[in-house]
Amino acid sequence: MTKQMLIGMHLGNGYGTIPGSWRAPGMDPTNYTSFDAKVRQAQAAERGKLQFLFFPDGPSHVGDLDNEPPGFNLDVMVTLAAVARETSRIGMVATGSTTFNEPFNVARHFKALDVLSHGRTGWNAVTSSAEDVAANYGRQLPPSHERYGRAHEVVHLVQALWGSWEQSAWTHDQESGRYAHADQVAPINLGGQYVASRGPLYIPPSEQGQPVIFHAGGSPNAHQFAGRWANAVIGSAFSIDDARAQREAFREGAERAGRNPDEIKFIVGLMTSLAPTKRESLDRRISLSGRVFGQRASYLGHMLGLHLDAKNLDRPLAPEQLAAARPSPADPRSVHALEVAHQGWTVRDILAHGVIDYHPVITGPAVEAANHMQEWFEADAADGFWILPDLEEGGVDDFVDGVVPILQDRGLFHHDYEGTTLREHLGAPAQYGVDPRVTQ
Amino acid sequence: MTKQMLIGMHLGNGYGTIPGSWRAPGMDPTNYTSFDAKVRQAQAAERGKLQFLFFPDGPSHVGDLDNEPPGFNLDVMVTLAAVARETSRIGMVATGSTTFNEPFNVARHFKALDVLSHGRTGWNAVTSSAEDVAANYGRQLPPSHERYGRAHEVVHLVQALWGSWEQSAWTHDQESGRYAHADQVAPINLGGQYVASRGPLYIPPSEQGQPVIFHAGGSPNAHQFAGRWANAVIGSAFSIDDARAQREAFREGAERAGRNPDEIKFIVGLMTSLAPTKRESLDRRISLSGRVFGQRASYLGHMLGLHLDAKNLDRPLAPEQLAAARPSPADPRSVHALEVAHQGWTVRDILAHGVIDYHPVITGPAVEAANHMQEWFEADAADGFWILPDLEEGGVDDFVDGVVPILQDRGLFHHDYEGTTLREHLGAPAQYGVDPRVTQ
Ligand SMILES: Cc1cc2nc3c(=O)[nH]c(=O)nc-3n(C[C@H](O)[C@H](O)[C@H](O)COP(=O)(O)O)c2cc1C
Ligand SMILES: Cc1cc2nc3c(=O)[nH]c(=O)nc-3n(C[C@H](O)[C@H](O)[C@H](O)COP(=O)(O)O)c2cc1C
Repeated sequence: MTKQMLIGMHLGNGYGTIPGSWRAPGMDPTNYTSFDAKVRQAQAAERGKLQFLFFPDGPSHVGDLDNEPPGFNLDVMVTLAAVARETSRIGMVATGSTTFNEPFNVARHFKALDVLSHGRTGWNAVTSSAEDVAANYGRQLPPSHERYGRAHEVVHLVQALWGSWEQSAWTHDQESGRYAHADQVAPINLGGQYVASRGPLYIPPSEQGQPVIFHAGGSPNAHQFAGRWANAVIGSAFSIDDARAQREAFREGAERAGRNPDEIKFIVGLMTSLAPTKRESLDRRISLSGRVFGQRASYLGHMLGLHLDAKNLDRPLAPEQLAAARPSPADPRSVHALEVAHQGWTVRDILAHGVIDYHPVITGPAVEAANHMQEWFEADAADGFWILPDLEEGGVDDFVDGVVPILQDRGLFHHDYEGTTLREHLGAPAQYGVDPRVTQ
Repeated sequence: MTKQMLIGMHLGNGYGTIPGSWRAPGMDPTNYTSFDAKVRQAQAAERGKLQFLFFPDGPSHVGDLDNEPPGFNLDVMVTLAAVARETSRIGMVATGSTTFNEPFNVARHFKALDVLSHGRTGWNAVTSSAEDVAANYGRQLPPSHERYGRAHEVVHLVQALWGSWEQSAWTHDQESGRYAHADQVAPINLGGQYVASRGPLYIPPSEQGQPVIFHAGGSPNAHQFAGRWANAVIGSAFSIDDARAQREAFREGAERAGRNPDEIKFIVGLMTSLAPTKRESLDRRISLSGRVFGQRASYLGHMLGLHLDAKNLDRPLAPEQLAAARPSPADPRSVHALEVAHQGWTVRDILAHGVIDYHPVITGPAVEAANHMQEWFEADAADGFWILPDLEEGGVDDFVDGVVPILQDRGLFHHDYEGTTLREHLGAPAQYGVDPRVTQ
């Protein structure tokens, strides 16, 4: 069988990833607090046999609340628990900070979620990088080397706690009266420079043993951290070359930690605004997000070395402007933005292509998304994709009903889950407790 | 209408509160990890119109794992989320430490649970009092005054975070495009000696505004703390006089904080082993817990100033022993134990009465439980009861089907929920954010 790609679905605030998504036709404006909505969206992704749901997290809110909802989920832990009971196969990955959580609490919550979900849980262990997050904990953000120093200790300790109830410990034999092998549930007594715990954690293994570790980060510290601990990386890249280089850096990180580089999957972001035609997709994006395009026009000008603002929205760039344009080397999206400009779209339409969004954006028919994914996947730019639909309500279905069948027909995506656990979905090796290869 | 009692149902490890409950006939020995079991038990309690479920918590495990399961739930937060989706009226109270949690995380988890459950969540804010819990967090237990000092700050800060998204802030008006009144979602910038947070917390109010605060503790520090912050106290008492004195101490605490004493409900524990006859109840307890009775016989001797051990189990106390017995003033259960001994039961049967359990124990028909509850309630010893069934599987139904109808017939317990929120179930006053009376 040829190699197949992995696909995850991003779930955020319940509305979607583009400004104004909360006002989309048919969108319930209370989706932010609706667990029914989360369950519906998760079930849609599961219908498409996607390997996992991905819940990013702050936790903090900074933004324009007069006009836009908070960017994150109410609470990823609580949401994951609610969704777990009403899905049966899809993996669920929630982001949790290594800097602003007690390791014993993280260990316990995530392993309980893994038991609840019958082995479908992943922890996206991130270091947090925003001062406003730190402020919510009454602190200042530690420098990167301290955050990553603590992160190593936290994940080590959490995995040791996960392993502290050994896999064969639980006998629960009513006949003999032997509940467990107490000697197989032992304290870990682990401590370092930042964190410590005695344990044990009194939670038996899930169907996959323990949660799978994800990571999201971009620095050499991140490569080292993920190389040692992670089975998957949530990444972001605007070109095949960039993605390939990032993927390589993480694979090298894994090798340096004594692991097989195939044990770490690089999952890159892709935003989708699917519609039967590109025009319909652009129009939907304009009708939802048009309010912010004046401001975005200025930024687009900045990216291209031109002066642009709200007054230019209705016109394509003039030939002199195209000739004078210089893509900013500081913004990796600039080259693509100029390419779109050269196609003759108005500034409004250029922006509607999503040229200054956080990830590459597909505007138009499902086959375009499938083509993009195939090209990147076959170029070894990624092991898979996490999909950020413009609308969580409806956009998940559009992806599942439109893109998934094309990828399946092309042999690029599985037709059904091979197993029941996230570890199986990812092809990650069995692991319980700490991987002895990475802690010498 | 005459005053009616409140009733909560204790849910722990999924088996029950007496040794050997995990081996009871019909008990699934994997209930410890079964969320189906938790949901089933919660639904049984809801069928009985009980005001709330109560989840105690360590978090730590110390015990005889060879023979007995861990005492607590896998993870109270995760369990509460799972149970919330599959019940609709019953309140859900989970224990969470003020000493070993980040206040921002507690605030967020519990308010999200409150939104998920449509206003049915309570937080039993406890200070934790065990060294083995502290060790799981790599620390030593701070002295009581520090724990309570921090507890005051944590609850203050958590409630301030809950109130930081004001009740009228969320407009979500798709027509006008006004998502919220951003000026009504403001940082709290609160900090004290132990904890601090900037906020805001980006979670709109639930149907009851915010979670209800419970407390469990026995010291003057606890009276002051609960008097200021709590709407209910989870208590333990072995006699009407003791319960009445405790209830009075908490009521005085509320008055000292400038509140109406009726705003704080004293909920006392009651263990039940219901069966058509007392003999059947005692036999069930013997068959499940008999293994520990040898050891308990020694302790019973200690309580009565006699020498007893496993060899005495088959005999009642001899007249000389009864004459020589001196109830230990150090153990409030001793007087009752001697009363039972005077009834002529064998030592095994005396122990099967639960004379050295953690709360008063009803062994026998449901009417005995109803009588006990009526007597205590009418003596102003408690505003309600939390029930610890011998078996979580089955014992909840026994209580609901046996005791509840009797109390209802006597006018002592409601026939249906008066409202949909925990706050309504408890008759607790409306509150959002911090109560201004208690923070001057
Ligand atoms: C694609 C991607 C997604 C991320 N998602 C999150 C997230 O959900 N929550 C978070 O706190 N940080 C997130 N981060 C930030 C990282 O955790 C990290 O703090 C940041 O990249 C700085 O670390 P670095 O110096 O290693 O890059 C994300 C980073 C990337 C690249
Ligand atoms: C009836 C009752 C139930 C309690 N339940 C818990 C619990 O579930 N978890 C916990 O950590 N402590 C629990 N405690 C302990 C208290 O939180 C507190 O730490 C202890 O009573 C010492 O504080 P104090 O000096 O105020 O009594 C409970 C105490 C009582 C009286």
